[in-house]
Amino acid sequence: MAPKYAPNLRSRLAPLLLFLQTGFIVIYALYVEFDPYAFMFGNTSSKLYSEFQDVNVMVVAGFGFLGTFLVRYGFSGSGFNLLVAVIATQWSIILNGYESWIQSRRILIDLKSLVFAEICTASALISIGTVIGKTNPVQLILIAILEVSGFILNGWLLRTFFEVKPLYCAMQLHTFGAFFGLMLTWVMRRKGSETPFEKEKMDRKTGLFSMFGTLFLWMFWASLNSILVDEGEKKLRIILSTYLALAVSAVAAAAVSVFTSPRGRINLGHIQKCSLSGGVAIGVSMSLVHRPWVAMTIGLAAGVISTLSLRYLKRHMLLAFGCHDTCGVLSVHGLPGLLGWLAHLILQINHMDDRTTAIRFAVFHICTLLITLSLSMSMGVITGLLVKWSFWRPPQDRKCFDDQAFWEFPKLAKKK
Amino acid sequence: MAPKYAPNLRSRLAPLLLFLQTGFIVIYALYVEFDPYAFMFGNTSSKLYSEFQDVNVMVVAGFGFLGTFLVRYGFSGSGFNLLVAVIATQWSIILNGYESWIQSRRILIDLKSLVFAEICTASALISIGTVIGKTNPVQLILIAILEVSGFILNGWLLRTFFEVKPLYCAMQLHTFGAFFGLMLTWVMRRKGSETPFEKEKMDRKTGLFSMFGTLFLWMFWASLNSILVDEGEKKLRIILSTYLALAVSAVAAAAVSVFTSPRGRINLGHIQKCSLSGGVAIGVSMSLVHRPWVAMTIGLAAGVISTLSLRYLKRHMLLAFGCHDTCGVLSVHGLPGLLGWLAHLILQINHMDDRTTAIRFAVFHICTLLITLSLSMSMGVITGLLVKWSFWRPPQDRKCFDDQAFWEFPKLAKKK
Amino acid sequence: MAPKYAPNLRSRLAPLLLFLQTGFIVIYALYVEFDPYAFMFGNTSSKLYSEFQDVNVMVVAGFGFLGTFLVRYGFSGSGFNLLVAVIATQWSIILNGYESWIQSRRILIDLKSLVFAEICTASALISIGTVIGKTNPVQLILIAILEVSGFILNGWLLRTFFEVKPLYCAMQLHTFGAFFGLMLTWVMRRKGSETPFEKEKMDRKTGLFSMFGTLFLWMFWASLNSILVDEGEKKLRIILSTYLALAVSAVAAAAVSVFTSPRGRINLGHIQKCSLSGGVAIGVSMSLVHRPWVAMTIGLAAGVISTLSLRYLKRHMLLAFGCHDTCGVLSVHGLPGLLGWLAHLILQINHMDDRTTAIRFAVFHICTLLITLSLSMSMGVITGLLVKWSFWRPPQDRKCFDDQAFWEFPKLAKKK
Repeated sequence: MAPKYAPNLRSRLAPLLLFLQTGFIVIYALYVEFDPYAFMFGNTSSKLYSEFQDVNVMVVAGFGFLGTFLVRYGFSGSGFNLLVAVIATQWSIILNGYESWIQSRRILIDLKSLVFAEICTASALISIGTVIGKTNPVQLILIAILEVSGFILNGWLLRTFFEVKPLYCAMQLHTFGAFFGLMLTWVMRRKGSETPFEKEKMDRKTGLFSMFGTLFLWMFWASLNSILVDEGEKKLRIILSTYLALAVSAVAAAAVSVFTSPRGRINLGHIQKCSLSGGVAIGVSMSLVHRPWVAMTIGLAAGVISTLSLRYLKRHMLLAFGCHDTCGVLSVHGLPGLLGWLAHLILQINHMDDRTTAIRFAVFHICTLLITLSLSMSMGVITGLLVKWSFWRPPQDRKCFDDQAFWEFPKLAKKK
Repeated sequence: MAPKYAPNLRSRLAPLLLFLQTGFIVIYALYVEFDPYAFMFGNTSSKLYSEFQDVNVMVVAGFGFLGTFLVRYGFSGSGFNLLVAVIATQWSIILNGYESWIQSRRILIDLKSLVFAEICTASALISIGTVIGKTNPVQLILIAILEVSGFILNGWLLRTFFEVKPLYCAMQLHTFGAFFGLMLTWVMRRKGSETPFEKEKMDRKTGLFSMFGTLFLWMFWASLNSILVDEGEKKLRIILSTYLALAVSAVAAAAVSVFTSPRGRINLGHIQKCSLSGGVAIGVSMSLVHRPWVAMTIGLAAGVISTLSLRYLKRHMLLAFGCHDTCGVLSVHGLPGLLGWLAHLILQINHMDDRTTAIRFAVFHICTLLITLSLSMSMGVITGLLVKWSFWRPPQDRKCFDDQAFWEFPKLAKKK
Repeated sequence: MAPKYAPNLRSRLAPLLLFLQTGFIVIYALYVEFDPYAFMFGNTSSKLYSEFQDVNVMVVAGFGFLGTFLVRYGFSGSGFNLLVAVIATQWSIILNGYESWIQSRRILIDLKSLVFAEICTASALISIGTVIGKTNPVQLILIAILEVSGFILNGWLLRTFFEVKPLYCAMQLHTFGAFFGLMLTWVMRRKGSETPFEKEKMDRKTGLFSMFGTLFLWMFWASLNSILVDEGEKKLRIILSTYLALAVSAVAAAAVSVFTSPRGRINLGHIQKCSLSGGVAIGVSMSLVHRPWVAMTIGLAAGVISTLSLRYLKRHMLLAFGCHDTCGVLSVHGLPGLLGWLAHLILQINHMDDRTTAIRFAVFHICTLLITLSLSMSMGVITGLLVKWSFWRPPQDRKCFDDQAFWEFPKLAKKK
């Protein structure tokens, strides 16, 4: 008979956290310094700060509250998100400084380092969306560390061997995170998980908490997409494109959701998730969007694909492959990421007069996608195999999607 | 006997959304372009961005969560708000570009266009506050489109025939929105709605969600009032005046609420709504406020009037005229808007030495108010008559203030 | 027999609010003016605005929602916070202008005045954290006014007699607020309050509202610490240090919380409160933090001390001294504040070569702490004795931690 209580994490979580944190402090003490010249070159850090805060709000509050929709999993949704985010960010700062460490044995950090690190963290938080509720915090932290490492490796490969621009590499966060997470949840599938978990549902109040997360992601997405771009006409274009794409994908999500419902009702989950798909798709293709209607069309396509896939494909993935995707990451980040890639390809080829260059670009562009996909999926499989290990004491099926496995409810226990 | 289920919106909402969205994309494809010179003139767009985000937060999260106080209507309150906001914003961008379209057959957009459009959207969201809970999303979208059109027409009339400054026109959003909404809800009144709707109440948790919306409106109101003003001493004055007026109206709301309660208790609805009235009143008169105490006095008067009217007038409006105002828009935006208009008149006349000029200004100022009122009220009546049409399948009385008419609750249905 | 209903506040709260507000308006009318030259000197106010908004969000929404964790006290937690914040801010503006009033009989205000005032307000809100739930709004307002006066007096003493820098004075807000609050709650202790109050607990939903407050404080803490510092390398250092210290203290809080729990579960209260302790400690010592690992170590120590003290010391304080500290202010602000003071001392001495100077600095530094502690504690005792007076109609024990004593619940009463 299975044990009645959730496994005790005391001997796993506390040592892991202390080990990681001490390790980080040692590495920082040896190699990391504040960049003393960061403010010399035209005060960019000062302008950056308010945009950094937008991205910070997305990572900490946006993703944090997006994950609170599960009726008994709100503490974990927001609490573990904070924990994972701060660890992944500290780790990303180290990894992103690797090249400078090779050269000078020290890593200089400024606000831009923090922004880059938070973008990597966002990619890990996306992956975690697939397994939330079925894992414990120890597993989440391991996943985040491996995902971030893979994502940074992917960016390095693309930049070094394909001379892809850093902005485009960063925008692969959605595709990388989604397919990493997908393989992860596939490897970690549980027997009998084709039937829905008892506690995997939303109620009137948790739906609103989750809406709060959605709205903060939705509102500040323009900052996420434009933060790596310097002031100028391009930045303005990206801000406006992102707003328009998000607006259209919100409309598309509502339209498709009500259209595919026999009783003509909207699914709040669709609105919350698919309203963001326009931001994902435009993020991958935005450099080449020069007219508002192009952004809107990309947003429309993303919204439609995303909502349809959440309505039909998600269930199919579960039944056919046993691939249970808690937050619908495939629909929200995976497919819109691919769509954005396709839009990028089409827009780029459209700009080119010469057929040979176009074909060369297409081949090159397909290669970057294949590398991202294969690296993310193989890293996802490896990570899945590692964290599946029962040494990490994953929660039993009965304790999935339940805060009570991880959080003290002393007062409740005493009184009721 | 009335049908048991709420009307099916599948054949109304989905086509309307797709029609509007496709129409917008076609119009944008034909006429709208990013302004390539937006960044040439002193980087104003860059400074504007963080203030734009404040206004964006107000429109999307502030108004969205303000409408979640109804105990069974939170999904609709925040979800429909997003839907209406993105449609109204896209439409406003087109209408605001009308004049430039006349000249050059194209509409150039930059961040300022988006800011203007969101201000128009705010005016529509204010109107919608009167009918929330008693309408379906199809009706809300139609109302928003007509309201925005009326508001932009009103601004155009004031600017063209009365040479009113654009800032003052924009600040009519409260007055216009409130009286539009008031006539709308009067025209759309239902039989027997003098008795309160069963589900029209707040509970401990929805009160907090609504508080969240209030606070985000309260905090960023200074951005809303100052965003159209260029850097300088005037902008600083407006920011400080708005803060002070809001602070005083929060105190006044609490004082009046507790004073008018026989058992000495505060009404959270009063705090949430009337704390904002100072921002409305100062918004209309701020150009002429040169001393802090003037802003505070306006805030005090607004808070007192607003709370008294919410306590006594709201019920009277319902009983005497059948005018059911869900969010108390008359008290929060209507009367403080009129108060701000009066304060503007008094302050302006006070500045003038010459009696003839003063009378001329007074006549002129009364005319602008009359135009705004008559246009908003007549547009409200027309809109009400149009959306009242049963073709749009409005919810039955029993389904008012209930999310279940519009939203899927699959998991709840399955388990409980 | 005690009366069944909570005391009626009508004759206390309404006159107090009107008296204070009218008084403020009169003082502002006589002496306060907008600074007409605020914009002359290099547009600093313009850059300041978005940081001001961050601090404003912390004060209004952050502290407001942090106090909503009590299951039946959410309306009061957020509503009274707003009320207290706006009154304390208006009062702080006056007191901060005292010196300029002495010189020129007028007080010129700009955005910086508002920022300073909000920092003083934050200190009052920290104090109030100790007595929340056991006081009525009349008492809270009196406490806030006296606390703010004491805090400003403390800053003036430190600046005048010890030539302490204004930044360091402002950062005493945590220490001053915490020890003021601690003495306050000790003086105001009730008989029999060693047994926990029936309604003093968190539930699944109020925990999330409180998490929302925590996250907004956590995210914008870097703005709070850096807002008084001018652009430049130091500001960047402070931003990054604050982020790192907060990140590490979040990890430490989780680690210690799970380690000290026999069943290996995390306490959400620890995460919410102790994640912030890094920001407190670094706030007091940040001027001297020149390397990232120093900030991280301070964050680690703060997180560990804060969580241990919340786990063990809080209960001990209650049993041994009858000192009931609702929000654990001693653990979150008091001890980390002392830790920051210690870190400041060590770092400063470390920089000094000369032993005599070092000793002189240490004596000087100990004096500033002693002054802050003795002033805050004596003011706390005085305030406690004053507000304890039954004239202010404090709630009965049975009505503690209950919104129903202060707020109208008309609809609930009618229907259920």
